[in-house]
Amino acid sequence: MDKGIETREKILHAAMHMVRESGFDSLTIGETAKQVGMSKSGVFAHFESRDELLLNVIAFTAQDFKEQVFDKALQHKRGLERINALSRYWIKWSHQPSGGCPFMSGAFEFDDRPGVIRDALVKQEKAVHDIWERAAKIAVEEKEFKAGTDCKQFAFEIFGNLLSFQIYKRLLNDVKAGQMYSISFQNILSRYLK
Amino acid sequence: MDKGIETREKILHAAMHMVRESGFDSLTIGETAKQVGMSKSGVFAHFESRDELLLNVIAFTAQDFKEQVFDKALQHKRGLERINALSRYWIKWSHQPSGGCPFMSGAFEFDDRPGVIRDALVKQEKAVHDIWERAAKIAVEEKEFKAGTDCKQFAFEIFGNLLSFQIYKRLLNDVKAGQMYSISFQNILSRYLK
Repeated sequence: MDKGIETREKILHAAMHMVRESGFDSLTIGETAKQVGMSKSGVFAHFESRDELLLNVIAFTAQDFKEQVFDKALQHKRGLERINALSRYWIKWSHQPSGGCPFMSGAFEFDDRPGVIRDALVKQEKAVHDIWERAAKIAVEEKEFKAGTDCKQFAFEIFGNLLSFQIYKRLLNDVKAGQMYSISFQNILSRYLK
Repeated sequence: MDKGIETREKILHAAMHMVRESGFDSLTIGETAKQVGMSKSGVFAHFESRDELLLNVIAFTAQDFKEQVFDKALQHKRGLERINALSRYWIKWSHQPSGGCPFMSGAFEFDDRPGVIRDALVKQEKAVHDIWERAAKIAVEEKEFKAGTDCKQFAFEIFGNLLSFQIYKRLLNDVKAGQMYSISFQNILSRYLK
């Protein structure tokens, strides 16, 4: 790989881990430079401003999500099987040793702060919502979900369940978090399954 | 009111609004001083450190939550009626013109950052969880919820629904957020009602 691209990837990787651990607010050019053992001007050579760094971290993390969750789920059979796969990969991605889901924390950090960062986060949250809404539509087409299912409502409920899992698992360290997530996931599914 | 106490209240009020708008990370002694038109040393006279300010803001906000949500719901009849009241007051409190729920954003900001702030947030999230778990237990006692209801599971699901509402309402500006919250709330209730 080209040396410049390699360094850029290394910076983005470190920044993604920082965001996972402490949220977007904690991410600065200075802190990122420290993490990768570079000078601030070295990082500035790749990202001209903090906003540019943040936007690139969001894009980098979105790509990681796509590869680890969406692309993997696509390899499963359309319908319920894919919905179950999405749930498994999503949970795994959202709960890593290096930290929780960066988009969830970002969503709460930036919901009241207009600007390019908020816009990028909105785009990403909508993309994830659409994945779930689309997965539900396919389950209707496959006649596994009831005809007339409100697929947007389904995605809203699925989202809430993962958010709750994050709070109980990562903040409250509740040993039953995974079990409660699974029960709730089945409860949601049971309303939509034929 | 004593002048010192009055100033302290004024500082905490401004700080609570700042946290509602931009999260805990954005709260500094300097920014708070600016908001209330005081000098930094004026704010330091009331709060010796940023952590002390943050801890006091958490306590102040928790008290506000208690008065606006819990105490008001207690005036309603035990059981389902109180559960519905809790939901209404909670939604209202979590979605104000000045910003979203400070504890929700705090939970995602501090989940991976050990320390006194995280401990205070955990205590508050647990208190809110307990309110819902207890409300469900009362509904079982009143024979409105099924005997053998997993009240902790109920609270977990209720929590997720409010988290999802916050994302769809405040970040995605989805006009259907309130409606989706209500449908999901009824869906959750329907599993536990006799």
